[in-house]
Amino acid sequence: MTTVLPGPTLPGPIDPPARLLMGPGPISAYPSVLRAMSAPLVGQYDPFMTTAMAETQELYRGVWNTTNDATLLIDGTSRAGIEAAIVSLVRPGDRVLVPVFGRFGHLLAEIAERAMAEVHTIETAWGQVFTPAAVEQAIVRVRPTLLALVQGDTSTTMNQPLDEIGEICARHGVLFYTDATASLGGNPFEADAWGVDAASAGLQKCLGGPSGSAPLTLSPRAVEVVTSRKKVEAGIREDGDPDAADFVRSNYFDLGMILDYWGPRRLNHHTEATSMLYAARECARVLLAEGREAVIERHRLAGAAMLAGVQGLGLQVFGDVAHKMHNVVAVEIPAGVAGDAARQAMLDDFGIEIGTSFGPLHGRVWRIGTMGYNARRDTVLTTLAALEQVLRRFGASVPVSGGVEAAADVYAGAA
Amino acid sequence: MTTVLPGPTLPGPIDPPARLLMGPGPISAYPSVLRAMSAPLVGQYDPFMTTAMAETQELYRGVWNTTNDATLLIDGTSRAGIEAAIVSLVRPGDRVLVPVFGRFGHLLAEIAERAMAEVHTIETAWGQVFTPAAVEQAIVRVRPTLLALVQGDTSTTMNQPLDEIGEICARHGVLFYTDATASLGGNPFEADAWGVDAASAGLQKCLGGPSGSAPLTLSPRAVEVVTSRKKVEAGIREDGDPDAADFVRSNYFDLGMILDYWGPRRLNHHTEATSMLYAARECARVLLAEGREAVIERHRLAGAAMLAGVQGLGLQVFGDVAHKMHNVVAVEIPAGVAGDAARQAMLDDFGIEIGTSFGPLHGRVWRIGTMGYNARRDTVLTTLAALEQVLRRFGASVPVSGGVEAAADVYAGAA
Repeated sequence: MTTVLPGPTLPGPIDPPARLLMGPGPISAYPSVLRAMSAPLVGQYDPFMTTAMAETQELYRGVWNTTNDATLLIDGTSRAGIEAAIVSLVRPGDRVLVPVFGRFGHLLAEIAERAMAEVHTIETAWGQVFTPAAVEQAIVRVRPTLLALVQGDTSTTMNQPLDEIGEICARHGVLFYTDATASLGGNPFEADAWGVDAASAGLQKCLGGPSGSAPLTLSPRAVEVVTSRKKVEAGIREDGDPDAADFVRSNYFDLGMILDYWGPRRLNHHTEATSMLYAARECARVLLAEGREAVIERHRLAGAAMLAGVQGLGLQVFGDVAHKMHNVVAVEIPAGVAGDAARQAMLDDFGIEIGTSFGPLHGRVWRIGTMGYNARRDTVLTTLAALEQVLRRFGASVPVSGGVEAAADVYAGAA
Repeated sequence: MTTVLPGPTLPGPIDPPARLLMGPGPISAYPSVLRAMSAPLVGQYDPFMTTAMAETQELYRGVWNTTNDATLLIDGTSRAGIEAAIVSLVRPGDRVLVPVFGRFGHLLAEIAERAMAEVHTIETAWGQVFTPAAVEQAIVRVRPTLLALVQGDTSTTMNQPLDEIGEICARHGVLFYTDATASLGGNPFEADAWGVDAASAGLQKCLGGPSGSAPLTLSPRAVEVVTSRKKVEAGIREDGDPDAADFVRSNYFDLGMILDYWGPRRLNHHTEATSMLYAARECARVLLAEGREAVIERHRLAGAAMLAGVQGLGLQVFGDVAHKMHNVVAVEIPAGVAGDAARQAMLDDFGIEIGTSFGPLHGRVWRIGTMGYNARRDTVLTTLAALEQVLRRFGASVPVSGGVEAAADVYAGAA
């Protein structure tokens, strides 16, 4: 019998260092979200639990701006929500169109490929977004079943305008899925007004919680598709239950079954991740208590202040600033500054995390976030004060107090 | 713009009622696990985070009794772990053999079917387990690529002996996967000594945590299979990275990619669910701090006391008691007792949850668990004292103090 870890070598209880997370996510969670997760567990069919699930659904209808009955959580990280939407909406061989403007467009395309779809992509340069006309042109050419389009791609910081896309999709009989992981809560999102058929997100960005739960909403049209493919699980199937030949190639991500678990039948699927449900519920609750529009405005203001601040430090901003998400900015690492070492100094000397980048931007830009709990004046000013010190120490020429003063001016102008 | 939830109707912070969870899981979590989840978040590549991930891997090597390098968590509930193992190990068209002795055998078969495997099942009556000879006979007949076998099936409370199965599989060139969700931590499990190639579990049973994280371990032979099918994600792929044609039909559950995230390359896949990682780490830490064998013995003793207790109340026990898991017992609902109403009275009057059942046992048996934090003398005696009161009120003839005294005797004999 192997005994790998004898008692004396056991690590102690988890005891994280103090960190101000100002990267592209995860970010520091709302304190009340952390507290919610330490609430005691209840049984999965306890009336308290089913009520908490129903409350969570209603709260997320508020967050998504929808009346969609099919509004729920997927138990997994944000990409679990993406995969659940795509694998449940797309049949093998279906055509899927993915406009790619950053890393997460590639992810949508890959997930659709793995679902055995025929995937078509269009691409634009990193730092840009698509015009509605470009999307429509591709739809006309490809004639897809599904358009899968990221709203906010943290890899480039861009926020793809979606307000005309749903109408285009409806006109061409195309289902419209969007990944709002990086944007939801910090930027406008109008599931119903924009004609979105399916959208998914995560908690670890503007919603101010930990990764591990993926809010998802489906229009009635999307519900029809996933319900038509429903199987009821062998171990609990009863006479007359559907058993579609055209079944979803995943049990865990079969939205038809997941809807039965969240719906009035309460048919057992997984065992809901109770603590993550508590967290997700609290993320939405604090957002709606502050007010959806007020939270978006807080993100807009923090983002504007951070943008002015980094420009005030003399840094170049990457990408089309007019289409930047509120909650993240990408700055070019100044020539001569050792990017990774400077980022490490932010962490070691100030306990502040800013982000590195992927793909073509790796080593070229840092990404600085102002999200959820950390979309605040004090976090913006503290980050800029520390960044000024670090940039100077790493050899950059930076205006004295240029970042903090510019950001404070934005806040002063708004006050 | 729809505003579904105006401020005044918002629910308050989560505030669960006091519950003693004595069902088949989820059960009341260890208090230190709940506390761990309220620890602050850190960035996903923070040295503290990568160290916590490595510590968690080493802790689970201790829990699984293995030296497997590929020991990690899947971010999802226990069935996410099952699906990750099966979809990564099985190619479309591969033959999979599933011996079914309860609901969760049906689940393994269904997940393998959805992975487009050619699935063969053998079945035994609910309440029984398979002999190694029966499993070997089926292997010889079916010649599967993978044997997928539940260890403990909570639907029947049975614990399938596994100690000879790995050797049989190895002799016939078959990969051996087992689902240890319900059993791990409360019953012996020897990944290496039993020749297990892949195993997965959840936190919400004997490990004493919330649902939402699935510990998983892979033998070097299993790692070879999943690595041979590896793709590196489009958005972060570099020259020379593998891009197997024979790819896994899921991105989220592609164990080859997940191994790269947990391994030295730390290649981004999902954003690790930080709070659930903290919980999973603490579940394993408290288990190993108490001692793996001591925890199993505590479960054995609590299970023996609960068994004696329900028998002392005159209840009939379902299934082959010699092969019962330590941590759950199924009792026949006495004739004339309204099962659901009595279970509800346990909850309403005493705050104690006991479990209902699935499939052929629905309405016929209750399932009573003694798991994780709740595998204790006081929880056993309290549950039996309450059950005596409820049974009597619902018209059953029960020996006065018959349950508590019988259970206390088991503990006295052991002391």
